[in-house]
Amino acid sequence: MSTTPTAPATTPTPADGPARTATPVETAAMHRALGLAARGPRGVNPQVGCVLLHPDGTVLGEGWHRGAGTPHAEVAALADAAAQGRDVRGATAVVTLEPCDHTGRTGPCSVALLDAGVARVVVGVEDPNPVAAGGAGRLRAAGVDVVTGVLAEDGARLLGVWLPAVRHGRPFVTLKTATSLDGRVAAADGTSRWITSDVARRHAHGLRAQVDAIVVGTGTALTDDPSLTARTSDGGLVEHQPLRVVVGHRDVPAGARLHGPGGELLQVRTHDPAVVLAALTQREVRHVLVEGGPTLAAAFLRAGLVDEVHAYVAPVLLGAGPAALADLGVTSIGDALRLTPTQVLPLGPDVLVVATPVPPAAPAPTPTPGPQEV
Amino acid sequence: MSTTPTAPATTPTPADGPARTATPVETAAMHRALGLAARGPRGVNPQVGCVLLHPDGTVLGEGWHRGAGTPHAEVAALADAAAQGRDVRGATAVVTLEPCDHTGRTGPCSVALLDAGVARVVVGVEDPNPVAAGGAGRLRAAGVDVVTGVLAEDGARLLGVWLPAVRHGRPFVTLKTATSLDGRVAAADGTSRWITSDVARRHAHGLRAQVDAIVVGTGTALTDDPSLTARTSDGGLVEHQPLRVVVGHRDVPAGARLHGPGGELLQVRTHDPAVVLAALTQREVRHVLVEGGPTLAAAFLRAGLVDEVHAYVAPVLLGAGPAALADLGVTSIGDALRLTPTQVLPLGPDVLVVATPVPPAAPAPTPTPGPQEV
Repeated sequence: MSTTPTAPATTPTPADGPARTATPVETAAMHRALGLAARGPRGVNPQVGCVLLHPDGTVLGEGWHRGAGTPHAEVAALADAAAQGRDVRGATAVVTLEPCDHTGRTGPCSVALLDAGVARVVVGVEDPNPVAAGGAGRLRAAGVDVVTGVLAEDGARLLGVWLPAVRHGRPFVTLKTATSLDGRVAAADGTSRWITSDVARRHAHGLRAQVDAIVVGTGTALTDDPSLTARTSDGGLVEHQPLRVVVGHRDVPAGARLHGPGGELLQVRTHDPAVVLAALTQREVRHVLVEGGPTLAAAFLRAGLVDEVHAYVAPVLLGAGPAALADLGVTSIGDALRLTPTQVLPLGPDVLVVATPVPPAAPAPTPTPGPQEV
Repeated sequence: MSTTPTAPATTPTPADGPARTATPVETAAMHRALGLAARGPRGVNPQVGCVLLHPDGTVLGEGWHRGAGTPHAEVAALADAAAQGRDVRGATAVVTLEPCDHTGRTGPCSVALLDAGVARVVVGVEDPNPVAAGGAGRLRAAGVDVVTGVLAEDGARLLGVWLPAVRHGRPFVTLKTATSLDGRVAAADGTSRWITSDVARRHAHGLRAQVDAIVVGTGTALTDDPSLTARTSDGGLVEHQPLRVVVGHRDVPAGARLHGPGGELLQVRTHDPAVVLAALTQREVRHVLVEGGPTLAAAFLRAGLVDEVHAYVAPVLLGAGPAALADLGVTSIGDALRLTPTQVLPLGPDVLVVATPVPPAAPAPTPTPGPQEV
């Protein structure tokens, strides 16, 4: 398709109609938009970037989403263009995620783009959010030329766990285990500090710093007295502290480390992982790290609610002690829960195996009773 | 030190005496000798190579050991020089392993070198064999100039398990495990075919083809009915088949695969790993692969008789089923058996962790009663 660099700022309508795929200039702008998106915070909302292009390829405005409650990337880019006195009528909006079509903390971006007179929209990833989706449809219905799926793999990578979390209507669940080479999480007397090395533990704290919530069962909370904080290598707390979630009916004692410095403490008095995830979905948690113990880990696996396993394996032999997982209901080798490894990472003397269940984890089931919170 | 390329074929005696370290020409000849050594078979005897140098650096003869019952490398090199009518009086012998000083299937190499009039001997690895050692001493006592430790690391690598086996007076022991990510060797009903992938199993057959003996307990022999053969990827038997060793008192049934095609079958009616290794030392076994089950593996570990662990870990979760190891007598994490990993090798979806115990395994203990063989 030809572009007309000297054409006026109106809808590009060459003899053979608008380009049905992104032009090289638009693809380059999508790369730029992905870079802008990455400037925003990871969190409840997705990272999104937007570049507004004049039909001649000139950039008219740029924007990215700076976190919940702030303008979406498209609105930020329109504001950027307006601040520079640039006319965006007939422009092309290149945006990493399909413009939303609903009114949340901000109004629908689809409407903002229509009101601004944008003539063409080039989209990276289609919106998986059943509430917010529909932006592309509304734009097309209003006569705007829409292309989707441009650099969609890069866009999906940027969105990370937000994408499956929104698609499944529940948080993305990472199950972490830290075991000896013979699969034990502690010695016979329950001691487990430390099976894995400093290097592996630092890596695990890096993961804690990325997630929105850490979940353990009451057994682990009472036996190990964990703090469930994300710490730096010198032991200090990192700025972002995940929500601390204890699952089960027994109370966490007043003197427990879980009541000490760190993220907010939430107890969900259930044994049903679906109930736990429903409670966390309500709190807009996108990424949950399940750290055990064996009973809770097995419950999540049996429910098909684990998206990814992070297994830290240390070159240590114990011969006795609790296993990483309680009964999964697997009796014969043919019924084994098989995973596809996506990463094998040596960490000092230890190895981290990152793997995803085959078949992948399930969408949100309907949990039974409502959670009771502390 | 200077060499005198035009000097006559007598002992090199420059003003400052013979070189106390290897000259560059001798070091180059050691590299050559290592290459020659590698042509010989791995087995009961070490791989050894020898190059005879004229004082001017010219090669007079080369030889390597071609397996038990054939001439040692030094004798082969002397024969090579003789066959070409070359005078080796005053020559330097460059040999990868210290010349033996005992009469076994062949006479002492130290004497052969003295009789030939060799004036200088450059040695790679000193002989760890208490029976055969002393060659360097005898040569020095006879006035021969001896330098040892030249490219000794390369020499030790070439000798492989032969070196620790001879040093410890027992076979080198490799313990193999193949587990799920949660440390189980089989599902709850005992089925284990297959936890690991084709790629990992092919790798394990490569290891079987290298060892002299495979050892399992009667429990494994009766439950799994293994053939304990080294097979190619198409299922055929490789040429070298390791000795098959069953440890324990229960009989192997007449119809068992262990009686089928493969290596010789030996039953050692004991539960003491030291007795097993004594029986195998008598048979000149240098490398043993212990494949389980959990009781036998734990017995070898508790006795400090494991030199190396090969742990194949598959991205599979079972949640129940037998563990890789029975009780090791470890009750608290501080008493854990810690290993130093030497290799982390992804094999298809699986990971192989090769690791050595810290501290290293023990020399041969004195076993109690003699083994009873089938």
